[in-house]
Amino acid sequence: MISFGEVARLSRLLAWKIKASGYHPDLIIAIGRGGYVPGRLVSDFLLFNDLTSIKIEHYMRGAEMKAEARIRFPLSVDISGKKVLIVDDITDTGETLQLSVEYMQSLGPVEVRTAVLQHKTSSSFVPNFYGQKVVKWRWIIYPWARYEDLAGFAEKTLGDRTLDISRIIAEFKDRYELEVGEKELLEILYDLAERNEIERVETDNVVGWRVKEK
Amino acid sequence: MISFGEVARLSRLLAWKIKASGYHPDLIIAIGRGGYVPGRLVSDFLLFNDLTSIKIEHYMRGAEMKAEARIRFPLSVDISGKKVLIVDDITDTGETLQLSVEYMQSLGPVEVRTAVLQHKTSSSFVPNFYGQKVVKWRWIIYPWARYEDLAGFAEKTLGDRTLDISRIIAEFKDRYELEVGEKELLEILYDLAERNEIERVETDNVVGWRVKEK
Repeated sequence: MISFGEVARLSRLLAWKIKASGYHPDLIIAIGRGGYVPGRLVSDFLLFNDLTSIKIEHYMRGAEMKAEARIRFPLSVDISGKKVLIVDDITDTGETLQLSVEYMQSLGPVEVRTAVLQHKTSSSFVPNFYGQKVVKWRWIIYPWARYEDLAGFAEKTLGDRTLDISRIIAEFKDRYELEVGEKELLEILYDLAERNEIERVETDNVVGWRVKEK
Repeated sequence: MISFGEVARLSRLLAWKIKASGYHPDLIIAIGRGGYVPGRLVSDFLLFNDLTSIKIEHYMRGAEMKAEARIRFPLSVDISGKKVLIVDDITDTGETLQLSVEYMQSLGPVEVRTAVLQHKTSSSFVPNFYGQKVVKWRWIIYPWARYEDLAGFAEKTLGDRTLDISRIIAEFKDRYELEVGEKELLEILYDLAERNEIERVETDNVVGWRVKEK
């Protein structure tokens, strides 16, 4: 779990590296949704105004359900003859940046460079700039994806069991090394229940949660 | 000066109000650049994926140099028949949101609603949702605009004088009630000097900074 303070520190370092390289982009493009916060922060540290975004989504394709990336929302700006800088949060498999660069290149820019807060060495794509290299693979929770990631972990933790709140908290700690407060987790559980993803179950001796059958 | 923690709290409150209203947008549109961080956070708390952006810029027009807003980067997504939610950081004069709503309305959506972290009552535009109302007018520095705002204040503070670092820090405190560290401010001053906005001056008894004549 990365704090906003750490995000700001990494963004500043990243901006510093970009500046030191002498690369002066005409446009910064944040990759949605993970690149929004780093993109905004880097543009601040570079005292640079022209920030836009595209959105890449990941989906499962074919019978083998292979994960693939595609452009969900394209660019609305002409980049022909321009130098662009793509900003994202992290290179995981590297697929998002790979696709982004191919897409940008097809639009006739002079140069495309890429920058991420954190670069996992597991990524097949190596960005031009990164704030930090992550060698040991681990799931990184950014503060702007905390709610969604915790909701995902909650459903995964429940699996096909019925667990009470204390048990879920304990498993978050054991399985994911995550310290989550009861108040925050309860809010997420009730939210998931409202969306019919999970349900609250009361029996004689336990008040618990389980994934809803569909 | 607003902290990231406060931004997260206001974004959560804002998302909560949107949810409670029963409004289910098909698309969230962040207004660049101020809406990037709140837009991303609100979309997390709503467990909502479809986030895109436009950019509005402010410029001076005509002989009277009247400040006006215009669309710098348009929308790249078809919103006809859709419900959209516009997210920005703050309503100051309200001009940005006013223009954004008019622009969106021209694209044939079913409904357009607006959400900001903070709504200044000085704004002529009242957003549908806000995290907090700001009654007493003051300049608010968000953590993603800190560098740029401090750079602006530094130039304004210098005016036509030559000041040393301690004097600038003291005036930041007196004039803007801003506590800024020497290290951060020096970095900004050297950055501005590199951009030829200001220059470092050494005389027999002082090492100071002044705005560069052009």
